[in-house]
Amino acid sequence: MLNIQLEQVLPSQIEHRSFELIQQELDHMGIRLDPENELVIKRAIHTTADFEYADSLVFSSHAVKKGMEALKQGAVIITDTNMGKSGINKRAASALGAEVLCFMADEDIAREAKERKCTRAVASMEKAVRLFGAPEGTRPCIFAIGNAPTALIRLYELVKEGRIKPSLIIGAPVGFVNVVQSKELVLTLEDTPYIVARGRKGGSNVAAAICNALLYQIK
Amino acid sequence: MLNIQLEQVLPSQIEHRSFELIQQELDHMGIRLDPENELVIKRAIHTTADFEYADSLVFSSHAVKKGMEALKQGAVIITDTNMGKSGINKRAASALGAEVLCFMADEDIAREAKERKCTRAVASMEKAVRLFGAPEGTRPCIFAIGNAPTALIRLYELVKEGRIKPSLIIGAPVGFVNVVQSKELVLTLEDTPYIVARGRKGGSNVAAAICNALLYQIK
Repeated sequence: MLNIQLEQVLPSQIEHRSFELIQQELDHMGIRLDPENELVIKRAIHTTADFEYADSLVFSSHAVKKGMEALKQGAVIITDTNMGKSGINKRAASALGAEVLCFMADEDIAREAKERKCTRAVASMEKAVRLFGAPEGTRPCIFAIGNAPTALIRLYELVKEGRIKPSLIIGAPVGFVNVVQSKELVLTLEDTPYIVARGRKGGSNVAAAICNALLYQIK
Repeated sequence: MLNIQLEQVLPSQIEHRSFELIQQELDHMGIRLDPENELVIKRAIHTTADFEYADSLVFSSHAVKKGMEALKQGAVIITDTNMGKSGINKRAASALGAEVLCFMADEDIAREAKERKCTRAVASMEKAVRLFGAPEGTRPCIFAIGNAPTALIRLYELVKEGRIKPSLIIGAPVGFVNVVQSKELVLTLEDTPYIVARGRKGGSNVAAAICNALLYQIK
């Protein structure tokens, strides 16, 4: 005999109800989130059902506010997967004049990665710097890295070399090879705003959710 | 003084090395995976860095083999997010004559969901049944549900009503409202192959990773 009780929630109320349940569980766990970062953290939990993000997300000073400012100025958001790009709300972005780009499937990137024996993610970061880097770069850049630690490591180097000045780095690659290290490198950057999912966890979905949390807070 | 040691791994070896590290950690945890399901489980862990999937993935009898057979016959894979579609290796799919479809952004789906006050995910499942359902349906169908429990619940009902006979249901919605229940419903299906991520966790990335694990095992 089947005994599975469905909760009756209107389609338009599902997200609201989900955030209520997340808050209840945080209360139950005795976790109080910093109001400034709260919606980003909750959206990361919403997209993963993983409460570890309440602990693992690390924010540089006023990173959320700085990311929102960049978006309001029509930032370009650069992802390291087309999946991440797909998960970002393009309607909300383009309403601000912001734009989401991913170079990973570009032919020139595939060719360059093969020739130089680097990852496509590395070649993608360098392409972003050619397009949006210093000294010409005037368009604010947000990097939303949810997959490749090699992208994040190369981005760290490019920042240290003064070749690009991101308005925000979302550092959420996932996995096992140099993932933890890539994030620790970003955490050492002093003048670059970041939101980093410390540890091995992350993902294109998490990077996209963080972008969306910024977009949805802009009135 | 910065002391972050990077592991030197060739780009072409990163994935192999990741799977080695996953196996090491499973060994360390004393977990032995069923060889039939091993690559699906490892790929879910690879895409999330979350070892809970070693426990939470539930497979109906020979679900992996059945999913692979459907793909070899040029199945259509229906996702409930464009993000999930984006994460599935289309080159590997199309080499088999398989195809990935997502109706979520279709105009007719938006209109229908609004009129009927249902989720777009529900309307998408019904569109899949109109296109690929019984009695005309001859093309094998794989449903890869990584987001919306409403999709999975409606799909369950449509299967029970005999309106579609999926070759495989990948049930991996994520979240808080009816997510657990939607998966428990699928687990009661007796003649429908399934791979279900029991509990609240899942995601479009997990659903896509499971599809890819099936695709990559086909020689």
